[in-house]
This record gives sequence, C-alpha cells and structure tokens, in this order.
Amino acid sequence: MIVYCVNLYVKKEHIDDFIAATAENHKGAISEKGNLRFDVLQRGDNPSQFLLYEVYESEEAVAEHKTTPHYLAWREKVAGWMSKPREGILHTVVCPQDRSLW
Amino acid sequence: MIVYCVNLYVKKEHIDDFIAATAENHKGAISEKGNLRFDVLQRGDNPSQFLLYEVYESEEAVAEHKTTPHYLAWREKVAGWMSKPREGILHTVVCPQDRSLW
Repeated sequence: MIVYCVNLYVKKEHIDDFIAATAENHKGAISEKGNLRFDVLQRGDNPSQFLLYEVYESEEAVAEHKTTPHYLAWREKVAGWMSKPREGILHTVVCPQDRSLW
Repeated sequence: MIVYCVNLYVKKEHIDDFIAATAENHKGAISEKGNLRFDVLQRGDNPSQFLLYEVYESEEAVAEHKTTPHYLAWREKVAGWMSKPREGILHTVVCPQDRSLW
C-alpha cells in the first residue's frame, strides 16, 4: 500500500465549488479496484486549505486513477480555483500492515 | 469526526526504535472506543519524517487518548529521538461523512 497526501490551496470564493467537485471525485475514486481510501479533509486553521488522503494498493493503481473520467473531470473543473499548485507527497505504510484494516 | 495529522522528525539513528515504539502506540490507539484510525506513515522522500493520521470521533476522544498508558509510554519513549518538535494539524472531515466508512 502507498499513501499520497495531496495539499490543495483553494481560492476563498471557490471553496464551496471545490468541495462539491471533490466529493464527486471521492465517490468515483473509492469505487476503483486499486483504491483503499480517498479521504477529503479541510484544515481547521485555514478553510482554504484541503488535504486529500489517497491510499492505493500500488503505483499502478495510482496511474490507473489518473485515467478515470471522475479524476479527469475533477482536474479540469478545479484548475482555475487553485490559489497555488497542489503538492502530492508519497508515503509508505508502517501501520497497519494488514490490508483488511484499510 | 476530526483528524489530526501529526508530523514527526526523527533522528536517523533512532528510526527503527521509533517505528517499534509507534507500532505499539498504534496497537493501543486503535483499540480505544473513540478512535477510528491511527495510521503510521513514512515519507517516501525522507525516511526520517513520519506522519500519524489520527481520526477520532470527537475532541473528547482525543483528550481521552492522551491519558492512556500506551500514549504516555510512547510520548516518554520517543521524546529523546526527535530532531525537532512534532506538529499536529487539526482537520475537519469533508468525505466520507458516513462513520462506517472510517
């Protein structure tokens, strides 16, 4: 399993649009075979900053995600709403190692 | 539900000790009534940097966690292994809203 934490910086006037579009992407992502989680979080100290917590079984599953209609639609939709480019940070899993706990 | 993302910076020579101690804390934390997840991750681009992804049902559950023997033992054990203070960042949940998906 691998985890991408993606930090996103959203223009204040597009926070609601971003939430609606990202909820759609979440719904599609969690239905992918190689996806284990796709949590969407909003920072407590800054409502313009979001975190996607994306867990996949492999890099191949991440690559597959990037070809899906829900991802491509989301990427196009949100592009103009960002105040700066997003940052994706790859992590390896220490715990839990048991796939059933994801 | 609330999510704390805790960034930890570990001295290189204590990475293995830190992983062992944090796996114990993970085991205790996920058995707490108010805890929904306690993922332990290591950054792909920097093995000295870790992320705890801690999901609780409420701030009360977070406060309760901080009184548990596993947390207190962990805190004491790892204190000398840090290269700088840890940072905990509170997030609110956008998706999934359904508690059963955590």
